[in-house]
Amino acid sequence: MDTNGMLKTKFTETFGVKYPIVQGGMQWVGRAGLVAAVANAGALGFITALTQPTPEDLGKEIERCRELTDQPFGVNLTILPSLKPPPYEEYRNVIIASGIKIVETAGYNPVDHLPHFKDNGIKVLHKCTSVRHAVKSQSIGVDGISIDGFECAGHPGEDDVPGLVLIPAAADKISIPMIASGGFADGRGLVAALALGADGMNMGTRFMSTKESCIHDNIKQKIVENDERQTVLVTRTLRNTNRVAKNSVSDEVIAIEKKGGATIEDLAHLITGQRGKVVYETGDTEYGMWSAGMVQGLIHDIPTVKELVDRIVAEAEEIISRLGAIFSPSPAVRS
Amino acid sequence: MDTNGMLKTKFTETFGVKYPIVQGGMQWVGRAGLVAAVANAGALGFITALTQPTPEDLGKEIERCRELTDQPFGVNLTILPSLKPPPYEEYRNVIIASGIKIVETAGYNPVDHLPHFKDNGIKVLHKCTSVRHAVKSQSIGVDGISIDGFECAGHPGEDDVPGLVLIPAAADKISIPMIASGGFADGRGLVAALALGADGMNMGTRFMSTKESCIHDNIKQKIVENDERQTVLVTRTLRNTNRVAKNSVSDEVIAIEKKGGATIEDLAHLITGQRGKVVYETGDTEYGMWSAGMVQGLIHDIPTVKELVDRIVAEAEEIISRLGAIFSPSPAVRS
Repeated sequence: MDTNGMLKTKFTETFGVKYPIVQGGMQWVGRAGLVAAVANAGALGFITALTQPTPEDLGKEIERCRELTDQPFGVNLTILPSLKPPPYEEYRNVIIASGIKIVETAGYNPVDHLPHFKDNGIKVLHKCTSVRHAVKSQSIGVDGISIDGFECAGHPGEDDVPGLVLIPAAADKISIPMIASGGFADGRGLVAALALGADGMNMGTRFMSTKESCIHDNIKQKIVENDERQTVLVTRTLRNTNRVAKNSVSDEVIAIEKKGGATIEDLAHLITGQRGKVVYETGDTEYGMWSAGMVQGLIHDIPTVKELVDRIVAEAEEIISRLGAIFSPSPAVRS
Repeated sequence: MDTNGMLKTKFTETFGVKYPIVQGGMQWVGRAGLVAAVANAGALGFITALTQPTPEDLGKEIERCRELTDQPFGVNLTILPSLKPPPYEEYRNVIIASGIKIVETAGYNPVDHLPHFKDNGIKVLHKCTSVRHAVKSQSIGVDGISIDGFECAGHPGEDDVPGLVLIPAAADKISIPMIASGGFADGRGLVAALALGADGMNMGTRFMSTKESCIHDNIKQKIVENDERQTVLVTRTLRNTNRVAKNSVSDEVIAIEKKGGATIEDLAHLITGQRGKVVYETGDTEYGMWSAGMVQGLIHDIPTVKELVDRIVAEAEEIISRLGAIFSPSPAVRS
């Protein structure tokens, strides 16, 4: 690791990265090209295991990423309610066999997988959406917490607590490294995350909208065009809430849900992840639902990953210097 | 104004206060005792006009506050949908006649009142819950914006955009002083607000839970006990959403709303502000709905206002010093 200009926090020390900036798992988005670019920029990227159709494909994707970077990167394994559960154990075995040393888990508590990862020297960063789940995860021995607020793309949980409150509330009870997720896109967010008690930040939608992200350019443009009001919560009635970009499909899902009593079978033709996959591949933003966070309201360009990361670090440094000046005129309170 | 140890931001300069910390209007809570304590602590407090039964009573409350402090304070005038609108113009005339120089407006756009305030040298801080309303308010000539996120107690609007996204999105378009509101209780929040592009922060629920706040001690204790999950949104179906502490009355309102088609008349016996008034006076937390923000999850004590403000400033200073150390080892990015 190049330690020149690194930002040292509990997170960077434990996970061995230069900057406390993470590109966590994103279904259909977390592939080798993006993850390697993130690693090369000094941040921590995660290949999304279940984006690969088979465990063998995941092994190949990890190899592909290794060809593109000599910096550390990880693999995300998300465990969510599913009509047809994937073979989690086989994916896990590939992660271990491939020599990956950092795993991001999300969704269900990773207790069944944790001993396997720990036995193989793999550090586990668990993403969760509530203080009680963060506390539970810490107690079972994960190495870091990614605490994900209401603003986030994808799965915000059912409590609707945004980062401004969730991050410090979690920080009060978490002693292991913790990064903040949901609503972050720039240096302002990084400094806010650190001020609120986190040791770094995770960005999803912002990394989706970079040159190296594999999704269709139409989606990136749509994220740039959309403001913070152009997301909606769907499948809340199934108690598996998703934040997605507002479009005709999300409107249809919400209309069905409003009638009441809709089951996962009633919605299956609209909510299948395969539809989202087609959106990302074809750029037809109205074909299916696709994840986007409210933070799209802060996204106005499509830079390279390195431009983005460098800009964030420079902006954060400038903000901290500006904040220092607010407090410097004379010692506060001590009068 | 005592300028020793003041924190200089665009907000403190324009509004003439020592610290960029505001106690904005709170129905039944913003009375002379609390507001004077806030002023004496170097922050900016607002008497809530409509808490006083008549314009004449407001005049007396302002006088009472003047007896308790020689520091600047303001009056809040909130204009909301109401079954029986109060005499706004008469309240406004009392504010002007009393020599108040700072007014916080909230609810509807203050365009009808603004010329009267401006003509009398009164600075207007307008509280709103969306970027477009902030931009509109700036364009009609208010002197400052209080941008209020989804986390807040009381009226979060209908967009559900939390501060982490709303504050920087607004900062991108607002050039006049702007403070951040909703989800703030401590020095971590103050630094986060400043990092996100605000010039200060507003706190409601946190100031409610101070020794000088006039509400019954049971309410303060309940706020200390409750965590960030113990609030709910009510009257959303009327498009006049309120965040209140979760209790049996809020549950009843939500149950009626879930059935669909409830009108303001159907709910009137449950949602009248007079019920909230009784809660604050008697401490019977189940008698009516009462406002509390998610930030109650970060409130663990009932300090004096001065203890609270001093602690926030000291904590903020400490955080900024810690952040400086993260960035200091060597210049970032410039390699």
